[in-house]
Amino acid sequence: MELDPKTDLKLERIVKAPRALVWECWTTPEHIKHFFVPRPHRVTECDIDLRVGGRFNTVFDVEGNEMRNEGVFLEVVPQQKLVFTDTYTEGWKPTENPFMTAILLLDEMADGATRYTAIARHRTPDSRKTHEDMGFFSGWGTVVDQLEEYARSLAR
Amino acid sequence: MELDPKTDLKLERIVKAPRALVWECWTTPEHIKHFFVPRPHRVTECDIDLRVGGRFNTVFDVEGNEMRNEGVFLEVVPQQKLVFTDTYTEGWKPTENPFMTAILLLDEMADGATRYTAIARHRTPDSRKTHEDMGFFSGWGTVVDQLEEYARSLAR
Repeated sequence: MELDPKTDLKLERIVKAPRALVWECWTTPEHIKHFFVPRPHRVTECDIDLRVGGRFNTVFDVEGNEMRNEGVFLEVVPQQKLVFTDTYTEGWKPTENPFMTAILLLDEMADGATRYTAIARHRTPDSRKTHEDMGFFSGWGTVVDQLEEYARSLAR
Repeated sequence: MELDPKTDLKLERIVKAPRALVWECWTTPEHIKHFFVPRPHRVTECDIDLRVGGRFNTVFDVEGNEMRNEGVFLEVVPQQKLVFTDTYTEGWKPTENPFMTAILLLDEMADGATRYTAIARHRTPDSRKTHEDMGFFSGWGTVVDQLEEYARSLAR
């Protein structure tokens, strides 16, 4: 897909786990808790209604502070594409200051691995820069490492 | 659905035309041109890709000035529910200052008429007020009158 370098961030990786399993990890609350934020931060709650407009809510523990995230899924193409955002809460209620829209693309590789593309789109170049400065690449990269490790533990 | 009176506007009407026809009018570019803005303003272009994330772009002629609107559909439930917004352009690219998210709900009535509910959700109370002051109720009401007249001319 066509990106805008001024407002978008992209991370592409090969994950050594089958696509069906990567998808399952990304869309199941119990799995999400095992990889979704860089350790030692933790996901303490996760509530998913996996459909267009359905909720994707999480609570993180970040050094003892509770961080609540509310959002919805915009597009759900099983095993291939997941789009979600904090731009809305359930029922298409717009949020005042949305931060980003995330697009996860999964491609099946010949050897049972998965090409994993994570894109964060922002409203402005400033938001993109803020996200990059917050550690987008190392943070989202760590999440992929954790996901790979966890998915492989499930596949055994 | 649950609305927020601080940020949402709602118009409810009974349209004397069958629901299938009202839906067709709302989702077909050639039909849109006949009712979608209060006359004497005109819709000069309309481009629709009727699917989640698909484009809903229009151009209006407002007293000789060209007004371009770009947006996407968020939810498409044939004959029942249409959600669209200027919050994104095609490909889930966020816009910097989105104005509103519109929800159209259609219910079939016993007598071949349609209950027509149009909701505009906004990010802030100020945006809601701006929209009301711009003439939401009379403007969207006129659009329903024009739609009803046009749909009935097709049904004859």
